[in-house]
Amino acid sequence: MSSKRNDYGEQSIEAHKKYGGKIAIESKMPLDTREDLSIAYTPGVAEPCREISKNRRKAYDYTWKKNSVAVVSDGSAVLGLGNIGPEASLPVMEGKCVLFKKFAEVDAVPVVLDTQDTEEIITAVKAIAPTYGGINLEDIGAPKCFEIEERLKEELDIPVMHDDQHGTAVVTLAGMINAMRVTGRKLNELKIVINGSGAAGVAVVKLLQHVGVQEVIMCDSRGTLYRGRSEMNPIKKEMASLTNHSRVKGDLGDALEDADVFIGVSVPGVLNGEMIKRMKKNPIIFAMANPVPEIMPEEAHEAGANIIATGRSDFPNQINNVLAFPGLFRGALNARTRDITYRMYVAAAYAIADCVENPTPEEIIPSAFDKRVAQQVAQTVEDVCEQQKAGIA
Amino acid sequence: MSSKRNDYGEQSIEAHKKYGGKIAIESKMPLDTREDLSIAYTPGVAEPCREISKNRRKAYDYTWKKNSVAVVSDGSAVLGLGNIGPEASLPVMEGKCVLFKKFAEVDAVPVVLDTQDTEEIITAVKAIAPTYGGINLEDIGAPKCFEIEERLKEELDIPVMHDDQHGTAVVTLAGMINAMRVTGRKLNELKIVINGSGAAGVAVVKLLQHVGVQEVIMCDSRGTLYRGRSEMNPIKKEMASLTNHSRVKGDLGDALEDADVFIGVSVPGVLNGEMIKRMKKNPIIFAMANPVPEIMPEEAHEAGANIIATGRSDFPNQINNVLAFPGLFRGALNARTRDITYRMYVAAAYAIADCVENPTPEEIIPSAFDKRVAQQVAQTVEDVCEQQKAGIA
Repeated sequence: MSSKRNDYGEQSIEAHKKYGGKIAIESKMPLDTREDLSIAYTPGVAEPCREISKNRRKAYDYTWKKNSVAVVSDGSAVLGLGNIGPEASLPVMEGKCVLFKKFAEVDAVPVVLDTQDTEEIITAVKAIAPTYGGINLEDIGAPKCFEIEERLKEELDIPVMHDDQHGTAVVTLAGMINAMRVTGRKLNELKIVINGSGAAGVAVVKLLQHVGVQEVIMCDSRGTLYRGRSEMNPIKKEMASLTNHSRVKGDLGDALEDADVFIGVSVPGVLNGEMIKRMKKNPIIFAMANPVPEIMPEEAHEAGANIIATGRSDFPNQINNVLAFPGLFRGALNARTRDITYRMYVAAAYAIADCVENPTPEEIIPSAFDKRVAQQVAQTVEDVCEQQKAGIA
Repeated sequence: MSSKRNDYGEQSIEAHKKYGGKIAIESKMPLDTREDLSIAYTPGVAEPCREISKNRRKAYDYTWKKNSVAVVSDGSAVLGLGNIGPEASLPVMEGKCVLFKKFAEVDAVPVVLDTQDTEEIITAVKAIAPTYGGINLEDIGAPKCFEIEERLKEELDIPVMHDDQHGTAVVTLAGMINAMRVTGRKLNELKIVINGSGAAGVAVVKLLQHVGVQEVIMCDSRGTLYRGRSEMNPIKKEMASLTNHSRVKGDLGDALEDADVFIGVSVPGVLNGEMIKRMKKNPIIFAMANPVPEIMPEEAHEAGANIIATGRSDFPNQINNVLAFPGLFRGALNARTRDITYRMYVAAAYAIADCVENPTPEEIIPSAFDKRVAQQVAQTVEDVCEQQKAGIA
């Protein structure tokens, strides 16, 4: 499982120490004279306060709420590191915040929680919600992440998104859309096998089904999920009932028999060439375990894979959430929508896919540095909101 | 009660709309290349995460925790506006944040809460506390503010301060120290009457007693607080037992008989020249109701007042919390202390007073724009921490 690439650990320690974290606050109003102070603070500030007290929505006109997102985590499922707790997750959350700023001019701040209890997390996020224009849930373990997101979406009037689920799902779908363009296959004719039934796996399946994918088999470390299997938590039971209609039993290799697509959101090294040879000809492999994929691209190629994507920046076709979350929230904030919906996820995936003008097996996903992506995603989210408003009106 | 001065309401509305709130996030690390991203975010970021998971205190080395303060409010007692709720309090909290930045380079963010229940506020703040290096409680109504602050100070390992209490008390004490220097009086010989028994009044009395003031009478809208008086909440009962040893009964005017000092943290216009004439000769008047003081300075002068301070910037001697809170938190963050103590408050008051080189009746308080103040306050807080450490060692 060793990987020879530079994992940037030492440089990262040095940089974090040197800069003292990654984010700082900046003042947008001048504060140099007594008059400046009277406008930004007392006595002048009383007037925007009064206006908002008459109409809460005016907070979007006069405060940072119009542009702010909380990146909330309990530190229970951080990167590949697992349950490392709130303080230790801060460097990741701050990283997310600087990506929000760089790619979409969103002012995001970390909020790490001193609890890992579902109800307490929900209570805490609800308590602080008036502060922000949106909530990005991050690195919260499955299965509790599902209930937390669902409840908060219901109970809050600002958009809530668990990025480990939907960010991953949107970029995966974007890649799949271009994989279809490259190979001429159709989404509704694919047989797809997903290895990994955590937050990302579940969201990927739901989004793929939303766009018409019919045949999906999910696997966990014990093999395929199927109705009636023992040892499944409620979400796995739900997924078993929504997938694997022919109730295929067996291990990952058995599931892959005649499959078009493998999607890995699991652990390093679980896929091998022999398994790939059991798939249809020219299969599509998305091996997204981080930092080491389910199979290294070279080995997958040798076994006949046609299109290969990973989570890594040093191979072609990086499935990187940064292509999705900044634009999704930018669009949601611009539209002041209270929810980010599946329609927006699908539209965002097409927007990302469309940023690759001529998709090839080596380029089904735009670069993480392509600045058009967040703009296009934001615009498409706004368009969906407009359409929804028009549809209601 | 009309006041002809410009209250900056219209300019404030315009500015808040134009800038869209007052604070933004800024990225401290470069993010321009793939390598930058690998250092600030994955895969490099895993290393600081790992280090912090082994030792939580390392969050101060690698994250914004070393420099961040949450400005927390439930919007229940905002400026003179009262209970306007969380969203409507955001402009004030953001204002506090930009002052933190301007005067002490502290990265402060607002957190406004969707609850006004004491226990729920405590639970919410405890839940989010790992995110920050300190908690500034703001505009939370009395008497619940006392229990909230006390409990959070006990239960959290980062400094917590309710600025409406201690910020006001520290700057008031600073002014009183220089009033003693100007008049040659001594703190422990003063008779002080405080009108207002809310958050600020209680904290001012406790801090004055901490530095040796003996004779204090507190008043509320019903007159003096004294042991055995009816209609007092628990904190008023406590204050009645700690003050007014001769159990003076009556109204504010009766309390002021032969007093050296009037301190108003109450409502506009409750003090008049007749009352001042009942005080000792050349009395000291701190009339801090905002925006309109308990008595206008001209009227107080005519009645014989010697030194007059208000909360306003358009009269001499402005008692402004901005002289205290930025430096207090700057010092606490630098020292990584888990508590801000009374010793620090007293030291801070002297540091503020010492910034006026030659105190006169018209200048007992430094200007709110005097940049030395926050530095001196921070340094003195650090010094106290050093002494405390040395004392324990």
